[in-house]
Amino acid sequence: MREKLLLLSNSVNHGKGYLEHAASEINDFLGSEIKEVLFIPYAGVTMSYDDYTNRVAKPFGSIGYKLRGIHMFDDPVEAVKQASAVAVGGGNTFQLLSCLYKNNLLDEIRSKARQGMPVLGWSAGSNINGPSIRTTNDMPIVEPPSFRALNLVPFQINPHYTEATLPNHGGESRKQRIAEFLELNPDIYVVGIPEGALLRIENGNISTVGPGEIKIFRKGMETKIKKVGDDISFLLD
Amino acid sequence: MREKLLLLSNSVNHGKGYLEHAASEINDFLGSEIKEVLFIPYAGVTMSYDDYTNRVAKPFGSIGYKLRGIHMFDDPVEAVKQASAVAVGGGNTFQLLSCLYKNNLLDEIRSKARQGMPVLGWSAGSNINGPSIRTTNDMPIVEPPSFRALNLVPFQINPHYTEATLPNHGGESRKQRIAEFLELNPDIYVVGIPEGALLRIENGNISTVGPGEIKIFRKGMETKIKKVGDDISFLLD
Repeated sequence: MREKLLLLSNSVNHGKGYLEHAASEINDFLGSEIKEVLFIPYAGVTMSYDDYTNRVAKPFGSIGYKLRGIHMFDDPVEAVKQASAVAVGGGNTFQLLSCLYKNNLLDEIRSKARQGMPVLGWSAGSNINGPSIRTTNDMPIVEPPSFRALNLVPFQINPHYTEATLPNHGGESRKQRIAEFLELNPDIYVVGIPEGALLRIENGNISTVGPGEIKIFRKGMETKIKKVGDDISFLLD
Repeated sequence: MREKLLLLSNSVNHGKGYLEHAASEINDFLGSEIKEVLFIPYAGVTMSYDDYTNRVAKPFGSIGYKLRGIHMFDDPVEAVKQASAVAVGGGNTFQLLSCLYKNNLLDEIRSKARQGMPVLGWSAGSNINGPSIRTTNDMPIVEPPSFRALNLVPFQINPHYTEATLPNHGGESRKQRIAEFLELNPDIYVVGIPEGALLRIENGNISTVGPGEIKIFRKGMETKIKKVGDDISFLLD
């Protein structure tokens, strides 16, 4: 397994600037040989691709990487082919996946990631690294051709994981939603990544980084709670 | 327009029993000629269809209606054909819509509803009365053949509507989610129905019932806030 992935739960941690909580980890992950990162802003819906790219370019610039939005290239598939690293921004997962299909990018990103090109993402941009987007929290505002996603990791991702609920509100909790998913999909792990935490996959290893604990769910299995340093290698089996 | 619809936001209002908050309205809606209601429990995922039907049968029984689950019939399409009223329960909207497609029920329910058969639903069961499920709050735990739904009303429904958010949590608010929907779908109304409220459609009229206010959204339009007695007939234009 040559995939090199950094999967963040969120972009803005409470009280911090954009990607500030993860900047040093992103720097460590990308290393010093990479100079430029290709940014995919497709998950942004109420913000222009230019605005989104400019916003993300700042924290990347502060750790020494140039960021270029994929919308600036005439041929997005060629842009991925030439890229030395790809960052996928958060927003709406359905819109992100729809645009990836529309631009025929899934195969190329998957192929380059399997050859070792670093891919990092947050929120919706993390979600699409799993086999499907069936554990997104987002509203299905647009219908993608399929829920199938990059399948770079064999487990489902639930970003912004929380067990907090709104008082006196009858909507399903996150735990209930994931329990429903497991009922229909008993043979797959779901990893709830709380805000502030992330997963790093490299050299066939997977680790969790950040102050929070991740929760790992599977039908018929007691929920596993894991933190920095814990062995979560079974997730890649 | 002959549709006769009762679209509830939720089944359990804070501090009340199952469907208790809407029982008298359901009674008034179904009237005295209807004796039996066909119940569609497909949205239930972590509960058996029998258990779900038994749960719903109680409040319906208390206002004088017999309830039979569609899963008890050999031929579900025939069951809809013979039904004098249909109730669609809440749960997961993606699972509900998938099962309706699997059992070829959408055309038959739509056709009978257009001839005046009363249809009532709550949460996911309300959601599917719109043109599509693109404004559901649910997790996409299963992939339906299409997001297209019954299209018995020309607007999108967002049940359990709330503007409350979790403190210090970066996930999108409901308002942001709907704003994203409108950005991609500018030509359609979205009706946010708060818990406790419902919409009643009958004789070409539409009204809102319940203590709460509904919110009506459309791209480029100031949000309309409507309560019992307000004219919301533009929603059916």
